[in-house]
Amino acid sequence: MVDLSKITTNGKAIYLAYDHGIEHGPVNLKGESIDPNYILDVAVRGGYNAIILQKGIAEKYYPDYRDKIPLIVKLNGKTKLVGGEPLSTQVCSVAEAAELGAAAVGYAVYLGSEHEAVMLKEFGKIEQEAEQHNLAVIGWMYPRGKAIKDDSSPEIVAYAARVGLELGADIVKIKYCGSRECFAQAVKAAGKTKVVLSGGPKVADDKFLEVIRNIMAAGAIGTAVGRNVWQKENPLEITQKIKEIIFK
Amino acid sequence: MVDLSKITTNGKAIYLAYDHGIEHGPVNLKGESIDPNYILDVAVRGGYNAIILQKGIAEKYYPDYRDKIPLIVKLNGKTKLVGGEPLSTQVCSVAEAAELGAAAVGYAVYLGSEHEAVMLKEFGKIEQEAEQHNLAVIGWMYPRGKAIKDDSSPEIVAYAARVGLELGADIVKIKYCGSRECFAQAVKAAGKTKVVLSGGPKVADDKFLEVIRNIMAAGAIGTAVGRNVWQKENPLEITQKIKEIIFK
Amino acid sequence: MVDLSKITTNGKAIYLAYDHGIEHGPVNLKGESIDPNYILDVAVRGGYNAIILQKGIAEKYYPDYRDKIPLIVKLNGKTKLVGGEPLSTQVCSVAEAAELGAAAVGYAVYLGSEHEAVMLKEFGKIEQEAEQHNLAVIGWMYPRGKAIKDDSSPEIVAYAARVGLELGADIVKIKYCGSRECFAQAVKAAGKTKVVLSGGPKVADDKFLEVIRNIMAAGAIGTAVGRNVWQKENPLEITQKIKEIIFK
Amino acid sequence: MVDLSKITTNGKAIYLAYDHGIEHGPVNLKGESIDPNYILDVAVRGGYNAIILQKGIAEKYYPDYRDKIPLIVKLNGKTKLVGGEPLSTQVCSVAEAAELGAAAVGYAVYLGSEHEAVMLKEFGKIEQEAEQHNLAVIGWMYPRGKAIKDDSSPEIVAYAARVGLELGADIVKIKYCGSRECFAQAVKAAGKTKVVLSGGPKVADDKFLEVIRNIMAAGAIGTAVGRNVWQKENPLEITQKIKEIIFK
Amino acid sequence: MVDLSKITTNGKAIYLAYDHGIEHGPVNLKGESIDPNYILDVAVRGGYNAIILQKGIAEKYYPDYRDKIPLIVKLNGKTKLVGGEPLSTQVCSVAEAAELGAAAVGYAVYLGSEHEAVMLKEFGKIEQEAEQHNLAVIGWMYPRGKAIKDDSSPEIVAYAARVGLELGADIVKIKYCGSRECFAQAVKAAGKTKVVLSGGPKVADDKFLEVIRNIMAAGAIGTAVGRNVWQKENPLEITQKIKEIIFK
Repeated sequence: MVDLSKITTNGKAIYLAYDHGIEHGPVNLKGESIDPNYILDVAVRGGYNAIILQKGIAEKYYPDYRDKIPLIVKLNGKTKLVGGEPLSTQVCSVAEAAELGAAAVGYAVYLGSEHEAVMLKEFGKIEQEAEQHNLAVIGWMYPRGKAIKDDSSPEIVAYAARVGLELGADIVKIKYCGSRECFAQAVKAAGKTKVVLSGGPKVADDKFLEVIRNIMAAGAIGTAVGRNVWQKENPLEITQKIKEIIFK
Repeated sequence: MVDLSKITTNGKAIYLAYDHGIEHGPVNLKGESIDPNYILDVAVRGGYNAIILQKGIAEKYYPDYRDKIPLIVKLNGKTKLVGGEPLSTQVCSVAEAAELGAAAVGYAVYLGSEHEAVMLKEFGKIEQEAEQHNLAVIGWMYPRGKAIKDDSSPEIVAYAARVGLELGADIVKIKYCGSRECFAQAVKAAGKTKVVLSGGPKVADDKFLEVIRNIMAAGAIGTAVGRNVWQKENPLEITQKIKEIIFK
Repeated sequence: MVDLSKITTNGKAIYLAYDHGIEHGPVNLKGESIDPNYILDVAVRGGYNAIILQKGIAEKYYPDYRDKIPLIVKLNGKTKLVGGEPLSTQVCSVAEAAELGAAAVGYAVYLGSEHEAVMLKEFGKIEQEAEQHNLAVIGWMYPRGKAIKDDSSPEIVAYAARVGLELGADIVKIKYCGSRECFAQAVKAAGKTKVVLSGGPKVADDKFLEVIRNIMAAGAIGTAVGRNVWQKENPLEITQKIKEIIFK
Repeated sequence: MVDLSKITTNGKAIYLAYDHGIEHGPVNLKGESIDPNYILDVAVRGGYNAIILQKGIAEKYYPDYRDKIPLIVKLNGKTKLVGGEPLSTQVCSVAEAAELGAAAVGYAVYLGSEHEAVMLKEFGKIEQEAEQHNLAVIGWMYPRGKAIKDDSSPEIVAYAARVGLELGADIVKIKYCGSRECFAQAVKAAGKTKVVLSGGPKVADDKFLEVIRNIMAAGAIGTAVGRNVWQKENPLEITQKIKEIIFK
Repeated sequence: MVDLSKITTNGKAIYLAYDHGIEHGPVNLKGESIDPNYILDVAVRGGYNAIILQKGIAEKYYPDYRDKIPLIVKLNGKTKLVGGEPLSTQVCSVAEAAELGAAAVGYAVYLGSEHEAVMLKEFGKIEQEAEQHNLAVIGWMYPRGKAIKDDSSPEIVAYAARVGLELGADIVKIKYCGSRECFAQAVKAAGKTKVVLSGGPKVADDKFLEVIRNIMAAGAIGTAVGRNVWQKENPLEITQKIKEIIFK
């Protein structure tokens, strides 16, 4: 089993997600958040366990931060422009990620999509390669597509977490299901695969921190959040509050 | 021909299937059955000939059990979330399975699906690789898809068994067709390919054991059952009863 | 050009086809014909030039017959369960066939199917590999799919034979077109590619032998027949009658 | 740039096309024209610059003619039986063609077909391999499919010629567009890529020779014609007339 | 990061695009512009930083210009003849481009097309190969397909630019969005990825130069224009005017 110590602190973790440029477009990158250096500075100053980037940004911006913060390279991506059933294919090899200095790689599987099989297969190969490079694998396990009525129902979130375990993810990034109890079920379903919370659109601080309190109480190891940090006026302030919950 | 002695006892076998996490989701893993360690303990204490796992669970849980029970790695999988014609693609290579300590590999072919050709082709390649690794191949031969009216009719079950023989499976895992007589036909159709019973949703003990009596009398070598064991309150008790039928 | 002497007698040939288990299912394998050993015995005692098997049966049954009768491995297959346009993909590599002791390999191309291109491409690669292994290639040239109105019209049968020649088959297996004259046209269209008759559902002996008389007079080198032999009560008797026509 | 001297005479060329067996079927191969030896004799005695064959005919008939006439192997093909958008995939590798003694390889791209991308990609790879084998590449540039209203309009023919240049064909084989003027535009569009006329159904000699006069005046280097030669009663007579136009 | 000095002057650049032969056909190549030598002469005499060609034209015309002007090879292409969702696949490998003497490679991604995933994946692999050959990668980032209502809206153009950065393009070629302000947003979205203007149909000089003034003020490094140069009567005159804006 891969050693997660490079991207955790006492088994807990806070990751800063910043792959929104391809998934959502600059419309989600208001103000300074459009600048990768701004985000990387937040990540370093906030003491994040790792920054999550697509390979292009990693290649052009990460070299200056290589000694300051670990890197997670997201290996697949798609734009929000395409209609139909979601398909996100690999745009970066594991070898490239390793060369960029990654400590882990990420890959999103849209469970329930008509293209699920394409992503499951690709995910399986990535794991095999990641092991050869001694890199951890984080699975964005996202039920999505016209067959998915509610992608944050307790049952579906626990299912997503479990698929991550079955397929060999070291960490799964899943949505919140609405309560501490159901998230605990998802954590249980994930077994030895660690669970981090996937963020979402910006919400009020109170509500957001309450969610984090719940997922940590439920057994998650932390968060992989983006917009709810860097869309805030003071990202370091909210970071501090998140860390207090996660690491204490 | 591959030596099956590592996963049989005097030519008979009882396997504990536990790949339901990806195929059905945690909704099928009530109570302790969500915990792979619980299942592996049942398998060891019950004296099973092998445990059937997806690669992720094998990687994270099997190392502690490597000397206690043989491993069968299921190489493909899909979630129940996807609609349309069933397609289950390979998520684990034969080489990975070998490295995990597998004594055999499994692969499901959905005969009659519009994607049948994809799975037949993949199954063919897996066999070639498995021979190089000296691993037995178990074919989950499941007629399924909109072209299949009744996946447990005598004719369709015998057909499924035969396809396993034609393609080179060492063992086929097939459904019950309703009687000892028709199952004997399926066993005959499978020829030198061994036949094990595929379980299904939990049924009453009496009925379940009667089925096992019938398939053994029909020439099957045993069972590859999950839910009808670990969804019971006392899995070892039912295990004992199954073993009495299979091995006597 | 490949040497066909291993699978012909004075340039003529009688092959016993037995790949019906995957194509049609056990429903076509009545009585003893479900047992590969029974069929292989018929082939040996009947003095056939070769037996045609899928790789699974070849692997499990042919070792005992390796010195008694040459083997032709059919490399692709599909079940009759799938609807839609026919697609039969490769399930056995040429290298595997060679290792099984094959003297030739077979591959079915469903001309006119929407998936024709997939099969033509695969057939092309098989020929290249077969040459490296010094194996003859037999093309099951079968027009089929919704674009094919009548798969045994004189024009369509001659077309099928010709495609075999154009693509490099050493032997083509084609349907009967209804008369000696039209079959002679198909033989002419096939040029230096040899032609064998593909059988079909069981018919009366008289009619069947008359067809063989016609195809031999038309220039075919023999037959690759299954059901019209082993579905008979006395396969060796009908074999003897076929051989008298082919070899005299 | 590849040396075309092996398949041209003073920069001009007359090729005998004979890949109709797969594209159209024997219905187009009346009388002696069904026999490849007959066609090869015509090619040799007529002094053609090369014969165009699919790999199967090349393998079985060309060895006797290897010192008498250069060979062009057509690498892809399809039957006319398939409906829908045209797709012709590679059935012969460049390496195979080289081994068969080819001086050049041919490949048809159906521009405008929904499968255009498949053929453009394959064509690109063929060129790369052909360069490694030092073989010329001839592109059958044929606009076809439901998006193509008129495949011999001046604009479409010039477009086809140009695509050949853009992609790197050494020679393009294109249809006649109706006049010397428009063909001159196509030749101009092709630039340093040479242009040969693609034939078509048999027409009257007068009309046919007039076309050749026009395309030569327009700057083409010659013809790649089949039916208008070997469907004639005296192929050598018409050959002589074509050559007088091309080479004088 | 790749060194762009071979294809820039003090960080600025003017490229002459000439891949219209495959994308639009000769109808766009009026008069002398159909002749690659004419275009290459314009490029050399105009002092362009590079010429953009498909591999076929590069192979046949660029050797005479190798010491006079750098080459950018466009690696994918499609004709305008195909209907449906746009798909442009790779027709030239990075290795071929390198051998042709390219200083950079280009690839078009039709964002929002149903085939987006095919192109994103191919683009990702190209970048990996390009790095091994030390070649810069230019992404033609073009939102297109039925999901794209307006491919030059500010939001969509900035999105396209950003995807180039996320995926690792060294330079993106994007459309004008209508104003200096919105183009500045696109440039900002592209971050360390340089931005060049993609041309379009010929427009009046005034309007065209005004656009260039705007994109340069917005932070672009230059232009990759074709028709608005070589469809003019005096291409060198307009070139001079463009250069005055870009380099001053």
